[in-house]
Amino acid sequence: MTVSQPRLAPGDALLMVDVQNDFLPGGHLAVSEGDAVIPILNRYLDYFSRKGLPILATRDWHPANHCSFKNQGGPWPEHCIAQTSGAEFPAALNLPESAQIISKATHPDQDAYSGFQGTDLDSLLKSREIRQLFIGGLATDYCVLNTVKDALKFGYTVYLLQDAVRAVNLSPDDGKKALQEMKDLDCRLCNINDLQPRATPSAALYTDLYQLTMMQGYFDQNMNDPAVFEFYVRELPPGRGFLLNAGLEQVLDYLEDLRVASQDLEWMRDCGFFSKNFVDSLKGFRFTGEVHAMPEGTVFFPNEPILRVTAPLPQAQLVETRIINLLQFQVMIASKAARIVLAAPGKTLMDFGLRRSHSIEAGLFAARASYIAGFTGTATIPAGALWDIPLFGTMAHSFILAHDDETQAFENFARSHPDNVVFLLDTYDTENAAHKIVDLAPRLQKEGINIRGVRLDSGDLQNHARKVRKILNAGGLDEVKIFASGDLDENKVRDFESCKTPIDGYGIGTRLATSADAPMLNCAYKLQEYAGRPRRKRSEGKSTLPGCKQVYRNFSADHKMTGDTLALDKEDMVGEPLIEAVMRQGKRCRPAVSLGEIRERTAQELNRLPEPLRSLQQDSPYPVEISNTIKKLAESLDRNL
Amino acid sequence: MTVSQPRLAPGDALLMVDVQNDFLPGGHLAVSEGDAVIPILNRYLDYFSRKGLPILATRDWHPANHCSFKNQGGPWPEHCIAQTSGAEFPAALNLPESAQIISKATHPDQDAYSGFQGTDLDSLLKSREIRQLFIGGLATDYCVLNTVKDALKFGYTVYLLQDAVRAVNLSPDDGKKALQEMKDLDCRLCNINDLQPRATPSAALYTDLYQLTMMQGYFDQNMNDPAVFEFYVRELPPGRGFLLNAGLEQVLDYLEDLRVASQDLEWMRDCGFFSKNFVDSLKGFRFTGEVHAMPEGTVFFPNEPILRVTAPLPQAQLVETRIINLLQFQVMIASKAARIVLAAPGKTLMDFGLRRSHSIEAGLFAARASYIAGFTGTATIPAGALWDIPLFGTMAHSFILAHDDETQAFENFARSHPDNVVFLLDTYDTENAAHKIVDLAPRLQKEGINIRGVRLDSGDLQNHARKVRKILNAGGLDEVKIFASGDLDENKVRDFESCKTPIDGYGIGTRLATSADAPMLNCAYKLQEYAGRPRRKRSEGKSTLPGCKQVYRNFSADHKMTGDTLALDKEDMVGEPLIEAVMRQGKRCRPAVSLGEIRERTAQELNRLPEPLRSLQQDSPYPVEISNTIKKLAESLDRNL
Repeated sequence: MTVSQPRLAPGDALLMVDVQNDFLPGGHLAVSEGDAVIPILNRYLDYFSRKGLPILATRDWHPANHCSFKNQGGPWPEHCIAQTSGAEFPAALNLPESAQIISKATHPDQDAYSGFQGTDLDSLLKSREIRQLFIGGLATDYCVLNTVKDALKFGYTVYLLQDAVRAVNLSPDDGKKALQEMKDLDCRLCNINDLQPRATPSAALYTDLYQLTMMQGYFDQNMNDPAVFEFYVRELPPGRGFLLNAGLEQVLDYLEDLRVASQDLEWMRDCGFFSKNFVDSLKGFRFTGEVHAMPEGTVFFPNEPILRVTAPLPQAQLVETRIINLLQFQVMIASKAARIVLAAPGKTLMDFGLRRSHSIEAGLFAARASYIAGFTGTATIPAGALWDIPLFGTMAHSFILAHDDETQAFENFARSHPDNVVFLLDTYDTENAAHKIVDLAPRLQKEGINIRGVRLDSGDLQNHARKVRKILNAGGLDEVKIFASGDLDENKVRDFESCKTPIDGYGIGTRLATSADAPMLNCAYKLQEYAGRPRRKRSEGKSTLPGCKQVYRNFSADHKMTGDTLALDKEDMVGEPLIEAVMRQGKRCRPAVSLGEIRERTAQELNRLPEPLRSLQQDSPYPVEISNTIKKLAESLDRNL
Repeated sequence: MTVSQPRLAPGDALLMVDVQNDFLPGGHLAVSEGDAVIPILNRYLDYFSRKGLPILATRDWHPANHCSFKNQGGPWPEHCIAQTSGAEFPAALNLPESAQIISKATHPDQDAYSGFQGTDLDSLLKSREIRQLFIGGLATDYCVLNTVKDALKFGYTVYLLQDAVRAVNLSPDDGKKALQEMKDLDCRLCNINDLQPRATPSAALYTDLYQLTMMQGYFDQNMNDPAVFEFYVRELPPGRGFLLNAGLEQVLDYLEDLRVASQDLEWMRDCGFFSKNFVDSLKGFRFTGEVHAMPEGTVFFPNEPILRVTAPLPQAQLVETRIINLLQFQVMIASKAARIVLAAPGKTLMDFGLRRSHSIEAGLFAARASYIAGFTGTATIPAGALWDIPLFGTMAHSFILAHDDETQAFENFARSHPDNVVFLLDTYDTENAAHKIVDLAPRLQKEGINIRGVRLDSGDLQNHARKVRKILNAGGLDEVKIFASGDLDENKVRDFESCKTPIDGYGIGTRLATSADAPMLNCAYKLQEYAGRPRRKRSEGKSTLPGCKQVYRNFSADHKMTGDTLALDKEDMVGEPLIEAVMRQGKRCRPAVSLGEIRERTAQELNRLPEPLRSLQQDSPYPVEISNTIKKLAESLDRNL
């Protein structure tokens, strides 16, 4: 007999039969090992509970003169008398408050082994659109057996929880026989380990449905020739002058590790969109293509490809969604962070964005992208733990609030972190707190603790910074740094800097990690060539430039960028070519570049920016010329339509 | 001897010694089992490559008359003569192009067992700031031994790759003796399995550094009393009238599963911020608190808590970052999606946002949040695979472009997906493509294939939709639906709808999944009570209302919301209380709510919105009154400062 693997879905419910104290060891009608079902049932309960699926429990709920009792001429000792402790569910059973309880055999002259007998269980289940029942409890050979038989009779699909039932076994084989009887009636069997949570799709399925439906089409037509796709940004966000490349290493990691996992194949087979042959063809799928790209930390401009994928069409198609997803985000954040770096030369810049980033991955990559751009570090722990990005952070208002006294809070913190003492000043009154710090400093100094800094997080930061600086200096705390945070971006930072506000460092969170003024890039990953022939989309406002491209950059005598040329890869143009091979046959053709090297490249690139591009307002765009060969190619493709 | 665990970091390099054909079985100076090192070295190569660490390879590169050859009076047969195949690296070795090759013993009269002898290896390594070498290759008892000895002499820390070396063993114990000699000189040993990639931190460390530094402070002061934190939004994004609650189930999953993993403890021990006692205290950490919340799908307003955590202070503190991260995003997206739903009643609404969402998780949760709000489905595969959210998607421009003929592309697609035929019209010319569809339809119909719809993705969508509708109707294709996509949001959709544009459904991507007009919420998770005493932060513009709160909602006779009261939890107010217990002792106290139920609740809530809140422009805010008790409590806390 094949045990079919159940996969829980709406329409399923858990039905527990008579798990009551009187049926447990020590009870009035104890089932041997009856208590052994409790820990297993708790796992089923937890599982159904998490899936949001209904849970029901039947119970014997007898009057004291019930006909099944020996003293009334029945076969059993007195048991499960309503309102007695023997009728209660055992305390160790984690029955949720929301479980529905079905009391049965509640009349003196009526017995009921089945939970359906004399109850409204069936109509209850039907009203909740339950079609499949998972049944366990006590005892296999009486109430479980009869409940299962009725459930099958009423048309439910039934799984017996084989590891969560026990038998009375008046005759030693009663349990076994009951099990056989249920199996013969088409009851299925289930154990807790069969109920796996639905497997999370692997990275191969981090994509849009249409990538797979197109792949099915390519498969049916045997369209496996090499395709060239390029990723580029169509236009700069308003007010921006340049973009900074970031995220390439994550794209290469993704491509190197790309596999279609067994759970992906299983989902594809079940979902109804694809043919079996196509799904089977994906077994052992790997990315085997080439990647050319600009190095991370390179400044670039609209229409310049920063990444080119050359691979068999279906492979190059599948990866579109994730490549855009990875590159857009880090480019967007690095480009914004670079503006902040340019606005605050030499200042400590800390990324505080994790909480309002759009996910943990977004927060992590925001920390990476801003560090690449020149930030000093981040508050995001995983970015420190994974990549050794320097971590910053000391206290929030809650630390102060949880103490009855602000100075006491400062003091306690300083003793816990003698090397990392930065006090948050604005919980109650910023200047008042600064005076407290001045009073506290000598006490701490006696213990060898130096205050590193203070943080201002609300109000008129410029005004507070000046006042706090005066208070600290007057108290001999000239060395104590002032950090500011709270809704900052490059414009606010530039304003503070241009007024020479005494702020030594900035914590920049939400507006950096969401790129709040431009939370998306108008970017694309487009087919430029298939089977050796250039291709061109002509959609209004979104037309593409055909062919494999290279970007050539020119510089002035003093090493400032003067203009780029976008040309075909095979053209020989003047200037430094920016796009290089980074992956062949699905493997990196050079080691991953370290964050330190990328930071250095960025610093060099920002130095080479023409002066107007270094300011926050942008008037005239940087010149990017399109080669005549590309223009002619586009025209000739249009003519042949 | 303790084998110290290496953890790769900048300053490390891989140095392979003489893995050349002549030293492999079949070569002129074959080392027994010499080829066994290749697969292991390939794993080291892959590993160093991915970590971005330098790779170097030495090689014997002898002239034909080299002094080490027997015919020149030396001890060895002729081997590794420059430019011969015997001197080449084996083809099976995945040496990256970027590896640096060091040729040695290149002069007739000079031999070199060590890679440092007569080469610039040392200066090369120093210029790249290498301090630690991982050395393997052939043979243990000659060139590896001597290279290791020189490396130690020159001051490097050296790990011998014990599983990637083999010995010549002229005497049977030569290899063993060489190993002992290296160990005695303080060479360390390493096997491939010692080089584990750095473990990804678990969800417990998805947080800001300051949460952990504060926890260290609480630990030192033994501050474990119950704390009450509430999550709320401070103000509505511009132009918005209400918010929609979403993301609660993800918060509960996070809290139920929260564990501090061994890699987290290891990182905390190593990072230098924390005391050993504190880190040890986190072993077995669990969230054991209570959660009260508004159900998902509930409409809410500024200052109304949608989630309250009651837990020992350190626990409630640790979870701040992730709770904000989870709730902000889904609330933001669900609230925006609800506006789109209100703008296009009865239309098919598809989330197309994955590619430009700020990560896969963001795309996945955007699909969930928009489905909750009333969207019909999504293109995001994992949202379908994990939660059975209906999936939409057919073809992109690349499918058309990869074919030489547009009609052929349509035809091929239709045959591959006879039940899901939606054609993209704007690759070259939208109306032209519509005519092609009309011509194609009868041919497909003969094969039993019906065209379900067409999609417009660029240009003046309203204009194209009208023209295409006419063309289709004239061709008898009245049943074919028109879907539109491309930079849409609630305002564009409302405009199309108000002009009765013949569009049957909208694919909404970037502006939904990034909440482009408001990519962040001004929201907070704030301490309201500690150790039974209410707390109040007074920071300018960010002051809090103290105490555990409840929201009471009132309705008109026709079931429209008329106003809310924000009161203390223990106050008895008029209206429907919106906040309920959802978790006790760290476990859900009811099953997870299904997406279907949440969608139903949302639909009901949107129906109960007062009419002005259903429009996209907002003038007068919905009334939320703050109870006198809260106001008095805040005043009394301020007085006692």
